[in-house]
Amino acid sequence: MQDWHGSRDSTPEGHDPDERWMRRALDLAARGPQVDPNPRVGCVVVSPQGEVVGEGWHRGAGTPHAEVAALESAGDAARGATAYVSLEPCAHTGRTGPCAQALHAAGVTRVVHAQTDPNPVAAGGADWLREHGVEVRGGVLAEEATALNRTWTHLATTGFPWVTWKLATTLDGRSAAADGTSRWITSEAARQDVHRLRSECGAVLVGTGTALTDDPYLTARRPDGSLMDVQPVRVVMGERDLPAGAHVLDDAAPTWHLRTRDPKQVLTALAEAGIHHVWLEGGPTIVAAFLAEGLVDEVVAYIAPVFLGRGRPSVGDLGITTIADALRLEPTDITLIGHDVRVTACLKESH
Amino acid sequence: MQDWHGSRDSTPEGHDPDERWMRRALDLAARGPQVDPNPRVGCVVVSPQGEVVGEGWHRGAGTPHAEVAALESAGDAARGATAYVSLEPCAHTGRTGPCAQALHAAGVTRVVHAQTDPNPVAAGGADWLREHGVEVRGGVLAEEATALNRTWTHLATTGFPWVTWKLATTLDGRSAAADGTSRWITSEAARQDVHRLRSECGAVLVGTGTALTDDPYLTARRPDGSLMDVQPVRVVMGERDLPAGAHVLDDAAPTWHLRTRDPKQVLTALAEAGIHHVWLEGGPTIVAAFLAEGLVDEVVAYIAPVFLGRGRPSVGDLGITTIADALRLEPTDITLIGHDVRVTACLKESH
Ligand SMILES: NC(=O)c1ccc[n+]([C@@H]2O[C@H](COP(=O)([O-])OP(=O)(O)OC[C@H]3O[C@@H](n4cnc5c(N)ncnc54)[C@H](OP(=O)(O)O)[C@@H]3O)[C@@H](O)[C@H]2O)c1
Ligand SMILES: NC(=O)c1ccc[n+]([C@@H]2O[C@H](COP(=O)([O-])OP(=O)(O)OC[C@H]3O[C@@H](n4cnc5c(N)ncnc54)[C@H](OP(=O)(O)O)[C@@H]3O)[C@@H](O)[C@H]2O)c1
Repeated sequence: MQDWHGSRDSTPEGHDPDERWMRRALDLAARGPQVDPNPRVGCVVVSPQGEVVGEGWHRGAGTPHAEVAALESAGDAARGATAYVSLEPCAHTGRTGPCAQALHAAGVTRVVHAQTDPNPVAAGGADWLREHGVEVRGGVLAEEATALNRTWTHLATTGFPWVTWKLATTLDGRSAAADGTSRWITSEAARQDVHRLRSECGAVLVGTGTALTDDPYLTARRPDGSLMDVQPVRVVMGERDLPAGAHVLDDAAPTWHLRTRDPKQVLTALAEAGIHHVWLEGGPTIVAAFLAEGLVDEVVAYIAPVFLGRGRPSVGDLGITTIADALRLEPTDITLIGHDVRVTACLKESH
Repeated sequence: MQDWHGSRDSTPEGHDPDERWMRRALDLAARGPQVDPNPRVGCVVVSPQGEVVGEGWHRGAGTPHAEVAALESAGDAARGATAYVSLEPCAHTGRTGPCAQALHAAGVTRVVHAQTDPNPVAAGGADWLREHGVEVRGGVLAEEATALNRTWTHLATTGFPWVTWKLATTLDGRSAAADGTSRWITSEAARQDVHRLRSECGAVLVGTGTALTDDPYLTARRPDGSLMDVQPVRVVMGERDLPAGAHVLDDAAPTWHLRTRDPKQVLTALAEAGIHHVWLEGGPTIVAAFLAEGLVDEVVAYIAPVFLGRGRPSVGDLGITTIADALRLEPTDITLIGHDVRVTACLKESH
């Protein structure tokens, strides 16, 4: 991160002082928790002399918003200052009171924000500030700020969490050999990567088929097997009962068994709980259901450099019969993880 | 290349003066033609005062070896000099006479070489030089030198050309939709990349099945459709006749129809023609035959970020029924080519 920022500073756009302070606000924002109902926001309060007089970031639901934290650290020095906020200050009264009002009350005379608040309930902060005589500039480094809260923004704009489908496959599209054996197709490094990415999501989702067949734990674990500090909610969807001793029912993490086959119903329930990022681990039946409804936003595919020739297909029937109907994606990242190739790609029709 | 060399120079190993000159010899070697029966070799002649007095590289079959070219440019200045050669000088009399003898005759008193000649016929140059009072140091940057002539070295040590299998597949292992349609799964950029890589091989190989079904040209073409300067030999293997009007029989490049189903017989015929790198383009029947005999050395897989769900498998039955028998590879490169992921991987059992 530091290197990258350094090199950006030397580009012409780095000479805009607003961008310089916004970059600091983004750095602060990134300190916030990835799994939280709220977005990650950072705020820097800068005096007319160009000195930082206050900094803050949002540390998670129930704690002060970034602006409030920064104003608190600035105290009287906020008077006449400029506040750089990575997200448009809210105008609604939530658990912590509207930030637009707090900025105004503290004497801030100029507010620069990056992302415009996509949330129809919270939006309006910029207008409110302008109406109250505060100068406002929006859209500074908006792309970076939006990327930082990609899944939260997706929830705010679509009403559904961002769904990342995790797929493990051989180079020839198999998930198991003809006799059903599959240990281990992907490497230990890839499995560790999955645990890390699970822990960055609010929920891990499987169907009852996978829960009953594989009896997985679905927890995010470290290489030594211990539980990571943040655990996603384990969600099993489908009508069948889970046996009392199922591993997903242990007390390592919360588990919700949603007795429905409707992907939208599941996503709505997760959205209501403030979950904006779902890690979809299969199996084939529920993946096909999510794909059919256009509810998969991204794929993280671990491709093992292995050929099986035949065996179980890694992806089931999607109802596609001709090439024109193929599901096409846009790769956003390719990385070698151990001996496996991890391809991250977004679905093109993703809203 | 230049950058990379530059950064290597600043590492401790860069302080070995022999390595410095050998790097120059390798740069010269890389100027030689990639498709040629002979290896790419460079030579630098350096005076006792540390001045370059002669340089040369091999420009292809029928032209002087690198040592002879370098000695020619050095003239009398070779007397008492050190010759840096990226491959052990030959001791046999080929079309151009043994280089070991030429170095000695020119008065060179020290010879530093990188790769040891893997060819049992040509080898012995270092011994011959030592016997004639010339100081010899071998193995300097041998790894880089061997990499430069990887496929030639493979032929010299195994008797078979290096076989690169080109595969195009969707993320879920399909080469066509259920109805057989497949245009276009991979992008234009990937198809251009295939043409470039074809032109770096001595031969492009398919079975009669592909030749009869697809009627391909198998030439190496530029984006505008024009033929590249160097064309691989087009090789079709299998017993069936090709129709008189088949595209592979046009005069754009030489074509050999080898009426055999024996992969080893094909590779031996190509080896005898000095071809050390074969680009295997399918179809599934001959690929399976090459894999079964352990004659595929490397795979270049173009993975399109596309899902088809079902459809034609990109790889046919390989006779593998259980995971322990899976064909495992070692990725050597991953690159995004347009929207496709190109994975280059070596077969582990490759000799
Ligand atoms: N290759 C991989 O990476 C991977 C990943 C995960 C699992 N798997 C394998 O997949 C197999 C399990 O396959 P699966 O397809 O049964 O797993 P699944 O998709 O996890 O579960 C399917 C079940 O979920 C319920 N369900 C929920 N929503 C549904 C919907 N919209 N439509 C239909 N059913 C719905 C149904 O059961 P109810 O009757 O209970 O509603 C259905 O039988 C296991 O062998 C597992 O190892 C492979
Ligand atoms: N997915 C891809 O990237 C890709 C690449 C290439 C082709 N294809 C497709 O593959 C299809 C053609 O498949 P194919 O399997 O027939 O093609 P193929 O492997 O090119 O040709 C098979 C034929 O080659 C001969 N042959 C040569 N060596 C053989 C051996 N060791 N064992 C058996 N036969 C041998 C046989 O014909 P004889 O009776 O003449 O000896 C055999 O029928 C086409 O539809 C083509 O589009 C796909």
